[in-house]
Amino acid sequence: MPRVVTLLSDFGLRDEYAGVMEAVIVRIAPDARVVHLTHGIEPQGVLQGALALAHALPYAPAGVHLAVVDPGVGSERRAVVVATGDGRLLVGPDNGLLTFAADDLGGVTAAYAIENGALFLQPVSRTFHGRDVFAPVAAHLAGGLAPSEVGPEIDPDTLVRIELPPAQLEEGHVRAAAMAIDRFGNVALSVRGAELDRLGLSTGARIEISAGAGRYFALRARTFADVRVGEMVVFDDSSGWAALAMNSGSIIDICDIERGDVIDLRLR
Amino acid sequence: MPRVVTLLSDFGLRDEYAGVMEAVIVRIAPDARVVHLTHGIEPQGVLQGALALAHALPYAPAGVHLAVVDPGVGSERRAVVVATGDGRLLVGPDNGLLTFAADDLGGVTAAYAIENGALFLQPVSRTFHGRDVFAPVAAHLAGGLAPSEVGPEIDPDTLVRIELPPAQLEEGHVRAAAMAIDRFGNVALSVRGAELDRLGLSTGARIEISAGAGRYFALRARTFADVRVGEMVVFDDSSGWAALAMNSGSIIDICDIERGDVIDLRLR
Amino acid sequence: MPRVVTLLSDFGLRDEYAGVMEAVIVRIAPDARVVHLTHGIEPQGVLQGALALAHALPYAPAGVHLAVVDPGVGSERRAVVVATGDGRLLVGPDNGLLTFAADDLGGVTAAYAIENGALFLQPVSRTFHGRDVFAPVAAHLAGGLAPSEVGPEIDPDTLVRIELPPAQLEEGHVRAAAMAIDRFGNVALSVRGAELDRLGLSTGARIEISAGAGRYFALRARTFADVRVGEMVVFDDSSGWAALAMNSGSIIDICDIERGDVIDLRLR
Repeated sequence: MPRVVTLLSDFGLRDEYAGVMEAVIVRIAPDARVVHLTHGIEPQGVLQGALALAHALPYAPAGVHLAVVDPGVGSERRAVVVATGDGRLLVGPDNGLLTFAADDLGGVTAAYAIENGALFLQPVSRTFHGRDVFAPVAAHLAGGLAPSEVGPEIDPDTLVRIELPPAQLEEGHVRAAAMAIDRFGNVALSVRGAELDRLGLSTGARIEISAGAGRYFALRARTFADVRVGEMVVFDDSSGWAALAMNSGSIIDICDIERGDVIDLRLR
Repeated sequence: MPRVVTLLSDFGLRDEYAGVMEAVIVRIAPDARVVHLTHGIEPQGVLQGALALAHALPYAPAGVHLAVVDPGVGSERRAVVVATGDGRLLVGPDNGLLTFAADDLGGVTAAYAIENGALFLQPVSRTFHGRDVFAPVAAHLAGGLAPSEVGPEIDPDTLVRIELPPAQLEEGHVRAAAMAIDRFGNVALSVRGAELDRLGLSTGARIEISAGAGRYFALRARTFADVRVGEMVVFDDSSGWAALAMNSGSIIDICDIERGDVIDLRLR
Repeated sequence: MPRVVTLLSDFGLRDEYAGVMEAVIVRIAPDARVVHLTHGIEPQGVLQGALALAHALPYAPAGVHLAVVDPGVGSERRAVVVATGDGRLLVGPDNGLLTFAADDLGGVTAAYAIENGALFLQPVSRTFHGRDVFAPVAAHLAGGLAPSEVGPEIDPDTLVRIELPPAQLEEGHVRAAAMAIDRFGNVALSVRGAELDRLGLSTGARIEISAGAGRYFALRARTFADVRVGEMVVFDDSSGWAALAMNSGSIIDICDIERGDVIDLRLR
């Protein structure tokens, strides 16, 4: 069975960067099965990339999982391979991009600093380690290379970690951050849907939403189809986060909400 | 020979949704050959998706063809598998998305309501049936599952159908809708090129085009290379629709035309 | 080993065109390994496409390499297959799109005009030769067809060539064009980084940049991580071109620079 290699990055698809990573992998590991998860992470959006990776990987076969959102490329940040409890190998920069996913996949069982230059494409560019370092390492791992061959084992506790944006939780009142806004205008908040339920913001509740200068009303429901066209809903998204949406429209077209904004939800 | 699974959706490529569908398929059917037709359908653009699917599938090998443009996800709309006269299996929501393609591929020979929860990823989310329902069903079909295993057979006559936007056809005068506008600014109209020919708007004809408050002149020709740079042309597009374009430019940058607008073409 | 077919075009991913090309290839050559390099070339951006192809192909396995940026589709421009010194077959319109890449891959060792209609999808549309001509030819080549079967051999010296935008080079002073601007706002100039070094604009130099009415200061360094957040840098990009960038930001958001603009760099 060919080994699966998944790719996720902030490279976009306008340039050839994502395609070049696949080309490098295919040259080294012709049998690898490459699955592009997304390259649409906002440039340098490490938190967004970490969330997308954590949301996607549980649905992928165990394999080699390369993620590149790497504002520190060319600096002294480490490049790492992380082995997870469920038998996956995650490859990427040591900036927190991999850790949400690893936590959800059995935790980090071992980690290695990528330092074995014999695996890299030479000369290594200063700005495209996706091509010169990460893709070849991922391909070699897909071909059966032991992760210990990429470089020295490192203490998993030294891996850089990032935190979710904080949420304030009270009975009937939650303040959380807009973590991600998808193509449909669904706004994922930094709080689980189950937490809203626990705090009284449960199905059928009417919720006042404050975002910047704007104030809106939404129904707590299971999905956007549960409210009328143009109405707002607070629902559990497909990854379990509390999310705002509008039936048959995009909240972003109506409300002034951007990624990172603090959103206030209050039971009415 | 691995079974081909084609994917089409309105998920875009900014988020991980399309990649997750492929991941789910690869996990269930490791040998499936996945071809992404497009995920660039406008959010909830069922008509646009139905046209793109009908334009693409005749060029794809017979296989399993998944399409997800699904404004009704989470509501009571049916999910279906449609078998076509030329041996394909189309999978998607029962909202008209599949029927143009099926009509062009030998017609619907059988249809099944997707109800066999044993095939789904559990728990099934309310908002991402592409991941939890459609992709696993498509993968199981690619792996050889009989379509009758997805759920009860249904009467093909009960499938939801959508209509093309109407066109008014007179000798030397046609009113039609702008059905789709592609990346190059080509505007496909809701009338076949052959119909224009029949009504006197044939090669070499000078055509006055009215769109909203704008009035333009175009040449009826075979392709944009037949007119001068910056001039407008009415041609048969690669799917046989009458279409407007500009040589070496985009009509959209010049004319105020949006999808859905009524366009008037008159012989001059 | 399946033959690799790479694809590059200006078709974008909003429409189904790129997916249809893969579908055609898979139907003719079921074992071909298709790698999408990019479809994000600006519409009709032959120079941009030629550069992207030249940057990508050295990293891809030798195979069949299809590129379609084709403003002259439907006119009398030739379609060609170009064999390179390192054993690749490049397929595309004869408009200069293929020649930078061929030059970097051992040069053109033979060229053929694509004229064998038996290989095409019939009827051949006037506007989508990617689907009807180029994809089937590429697939047949991937399946083992001899390139001489596509049509008559032609003199490589008759291939259309394009030139890089000119650069003026003096000691301590360079004027060059912005050739490409990537997703991160990195601006590639029409001069090699090594040329800047030779002319005294070497690592550590302070450089005054004039672009239109704007004037900026940048440090000549190895990568954006070598300057402070928000500062500008002149570096060698991952393909060796001199490029402008900003640490943790996009130059495009700050400076009024577009593709094609002349940029003046002067040692200060």
